[in-house]
Amino acid sequence: MNAMNDTAKDPFTLAGKSFGSRLLIGTAGYPNRQVMLDALEVSGAEIVTVSIRRVSTESYAENLWDLLKDRCHLLPNTAGCGTVRDAVLTAQLGREAVGTDWVKLELIGDRETLYPDVAQLVEAAEELVKDGFIVLPYCTDDPVVCQKLADVGCAAVMPLASPIGSGMGLVNPYNLEMVCNRSTVPVIVDAGIGTASDAARALEIGADAVLLNTAISKARNPVLMAAAMRDAVAAGRAARRAGRIPRKGYAEASSPQLGMIGS
Amino acid sequence: MNAMNDTAKDPFTLAGKSFGSRLLIGTAGYPNRQVMLDALEVSGAEIVTVSIRRVSTESYAENLWDLLKDRCHLLPNTAGCGTVRDAVLTAQLGREAVGTDWVKLELIGDRETLYPDVAQLVEAAEELVKDGFIVLPYCTDDPVVCQKLADVGCAAVMPLASPIGSGMGLVNPYNLEMVCNRSTVPVIVDAGIGTASDAARALEIGADAVLLNTAISKARNPVLMAAAMRDAVAAGRAARRAGRIPRKGYAEASSPQLGMIGS
Amino acid sequence: MNAMNDTAKDPFTLAGKSFGSRLLIGTAGYPNRQVMLDALEVSGAEIVTVSIRRVSTESYAENLWDLLKDRCHLLPNTAGCGTVRDAVLTAQLGREAVGTDWVKLELIGDRETLYPDVAQLVEAAEELVKDGFIVLPYCTDDPVVCQKLADVGCAAVMPLASPIGSGMGLVNPYNLEMVCNRSTVPVIVDAGIGTASDAARALEIGADAVLLNTAISKARNPVLMAAAMRDAVAAGRAARRAGRIPRKGYAEASSPQLGMIGS
Amino acid sequence: MNAMNDTAKDPFTLAGKSFGSRLLIGTAGYPNRQVMLDALEVSGAEIVTVSIRRVSTESYAENLWDLLKDRCHLLPNTAGCGTVRDAVLTAQLGREAVGTDWVKLELIGDRETLYPDVAQLVEAAEELVKDGFIVLPYCTDDPVVCQKLADVGCAAVMPLASPIGSGMGLVNPYNLEMVCNRSTVPVIVDAGIGTASDAARALEIGADAVLLNTAISKARNPVLMAAAMRDAVAAGRAARRAGRIPRKGYAEASSPQLGMIGS
Repeated sequence: MNAMNDTAKDPFTLAGKSFGSRLLIGTAGYPNRQVMLDALEVSGAEIVTVSIRRVSTESYAENLWDLLKDRCHLLPNTAGCGTVRDAVLTAQLGREAVGTDWVKLELIGDRETLYPDVAQLVEAAEELVKDGFIVLPYCTDDPVVCQKLADVGCAAVMPLASPIGSGMGLVNPYNLEMVCNRSTVPVIVDAGIGTASDAARALEIGADAVLLNTAISKARNPVLMAAAMRDAVAAGRAARRAGRIPRKGYAEASSPQLGMIGS
Repeated sequence: MNAMNDTAKDPFTLAGKSFGSRLLIGTAGYPNRQVMLDALEVSGAEIVTVSIRRVSTESYAENLWDLLKDRCHLLPNTAGCGTVRDAVLTAQLGREAVGTDWVKLELIGDRETLYPDVAQLVEAAEELVKDGFIVLPYCTDDPVVCQKLADVGCAAVMPLASPIGSGMGLVNPYNLEMVCNRSTVPVIVDAGIGTASDAARALEIGADAVLLNTAISKARNPVLMAAAMRDAVAAGRAARRAGRIPRKGYAEASSPQLGMIGS
Repeated sequence: MNAMNDTAKDPFTLAGKSFGSRLLIGTAGYPNRQVMLDALEVSGAEIVTVSIRRVSTESYAENLWDLLKDRCHLLPNTAGCGTVRDAVLTAQLGREAVGTDWVKLELIGDRETLYPDVAQLVEAAEELVKDGFIVLPYCTDDPVVCQKLADVGCAAVMPLASPIGSGMGLVNPYNLEMVCNRSTVPVIVDAGIGTASDAARALEIGADAVLLNTAISKARNPVLMAAAMRDAVAAGRAARRAGRIPRKGYAEASSPQLGMIGS
Repeated sequence: MNAMNDTAKDPFTLAGKSFGSRLLIGTAGYPNRQVMLDALEVSGAEIVTVSIRRVSTESYAENLWDLLKDRCHLLPNTAGCGTVRDAVLTAQLGREAVGTDWVKLELIGDRETLYPDVAQLVEAAEELVKDGFIVLPYCTDDPVVCQKLADVGCAAVMPLASPIGSGMGLVNPYNLEMVCNRSTVPVIVDAGIGTASDAARALEIGADAVLLNTAISKARNPVLMAAAMRDAVAAGRAARRAGRIPRKGYAEASSPQLGMIGS
């Protein structure tokens, strides 16, 4: 009955690790580093993703890595990769530089829509799993693709809600729900979240977690939006577990409808 | 920059009173009284609505009144009334019995849809305002009706999201946003909320608060749903204030897209 | 079984008169008169609405009246009226000038949203019905208002799909369907239609007809859009009568799924 | 200006052939053969798809083939195939039996959702193109997959609106529009259409044609639904070409709003 205790008993388990927060966030696009750190802290996120390219190529980024590594579980990502070879090499580079075998696998098929190339994605995922990585692939909401990614050993699937950075929210809740219902691994909705209710809804339809970046980093007030996302994810998850009322075509009185007093 | 302080500086002001929570809840339909009290406490709601008919006609309800009056700001409602005379008499009865001049004005035009009779509603509202009441009318999302209710002196307008108890959520976010944009008094979305993301979205499109009952009382776990609604309302309000990113037709990379490493 | 014969047996009956087309159109906003006449002809519309103010105040309009009266059933409207008295006088003026007791009753409550003032609308409708008019009121999708309009003797109700000229389509199909299901008089969806599928959908959810103006007159090619609307209304009506398949959460093969040939 | 002539000048060109109708239909699931033939005739469809398995394995189907071959352009499909080898062999079998090198390529990745296996689909398409086929692949609304299918030489892409037979309509109009905007080959929306307005909308957002089966064959009155679909496709296409009005947040008067007469 106690909602608080209840929440404590609801950890998010990913690749054998247990997390208290179901919000994962990115580190790109903030007005400055202090805002990023404040947003990260307010968000309560425990898993934070950083581009391996930035780690590898920017001295700024290297410091970022050092700065974050004691605060959260770092998740290097292969943003910007467009071939299996490119993605695998980048992941390996990241592992060496950073000392984690977790990787968010991005393998982009198109520079304009930033949609993944799902055929290459499955190949790269399989190769990385064999190489000992914990693979979290950014993918589409195609249930067959998601099944294949689980079959080759991915620790979760991360279907997009809508294109990266678009803020369009859940353009296809129907497919996302289908993926959530059928998935044998955790589902993390990744990309496209625009505002708090989008994040809540993703959890309500059955996603295990949400990963977002731009919705916080490019909000007018990123720190306040981080608080909004933290609460939205908690709300969506609690609503899912609480068992929502069914939708009815017609009204049903909440207060008793007795005889007219005035009549 | 500090999101917490920021939230503290964002009270909800209604009829000159200041409230910390933007969630108002009803008291009907709970499995039992203890669950209701637990849900109420977890929700953080400060304004709680009770049917005057129940107060007047049930000994159970009278006790309910005594039980709640020290915990929260009580808002008697005229649920079940269908004429101006009926609603006005019920409101007056409630004021006498309970000692508050606040009233949630319900004047139902149809027993099946529980839609308000907006013409009579404006009349009753005007009469009650003249009689010294703080009137909070349950109404439609019709901008002309909302304007008239504000014009006759209502302290807020309470447009429905969808029919009472339907759980359909915001069936017309377009009109609700239009009403929020134009209203000269606070807008409290009342009725039809089904789950947490509905409540968040109401705040995001500009509502000042949300009133709900069935979504909590008839959830499988009402106390956990009360926590969900508390967080959803906080999330939706924070997202509104934080200034969400615009929706874009196409993708925009969050991580920098550098040259291929593998190429 | 013969679809053609079937269509012929499906007249639209309004105030005792029978029409072959379920598309009603307006006459305002065309690039020029010839385009209007061409669009009118292509549309197949038999009922055409003209503003009484234009008839009364513009010599251009008077000619328009003469021009149209032999081609179609003219429906004078009270566009621009904002009070009961104004609307009633305008309707009476129209009857005298034009010689028809049909009137599309518009009684606007707000110059910006062009939403009707539903309380005054019911009053004006009642007065005009008593004065012998066939009253077709432009109203909201509020089921209680629609019921009242039918109760005072209106020949149909004409709920908006979205604000006049907005092209937003059916912003609340849920309410429109509720109104259609419950109405004791024909329902003509009026205002807000943007494109052909909007018109088709209105018929599919149970509307008896559609009235539109801007969607045709302001399209890039009004005559071609008139053809689109003619076909869309026919399509929507036929689909309604044909009994659509139910929506299913999952796939169902149309072609038989036999054993693998290749295996 | 003449809408009729205009329509005549708007053929649908597919693989170098020109068609008057933009509606393609299937032959499965009809109550009986006569209803199928009537529906086919009323629909105006010129391209009709038949399962190669049925042609190969049922004497009934063989007759069907003979029955249809003079009435329309037959499009054999590989329904029920689940591997590249299976699909390629089936297509070749169909070509031999039927004497056409056109094939609707279905390569199913999951028996429950009937979603395509897009990786295998691209492989099979490439192989069939090299073997001289005109390949029309049933695919997802993934823009990268659609681009690959065009790149390997498919004559069109056929993204689903929603799962086969579901009648859910366009669950992701956003992605479909993105695919239409970017495609270098014709886009035929295939699968999931439930009713007439769905078909119209597919054309309005830029699809070149629509392929459907269950929506007609399982409607209560298939022949009348065939008429509805014929008109809906014509309407959607005409609306697309006519250039719809933009959506506006607020109302815009169609009739001139002059000064009050009554005032």
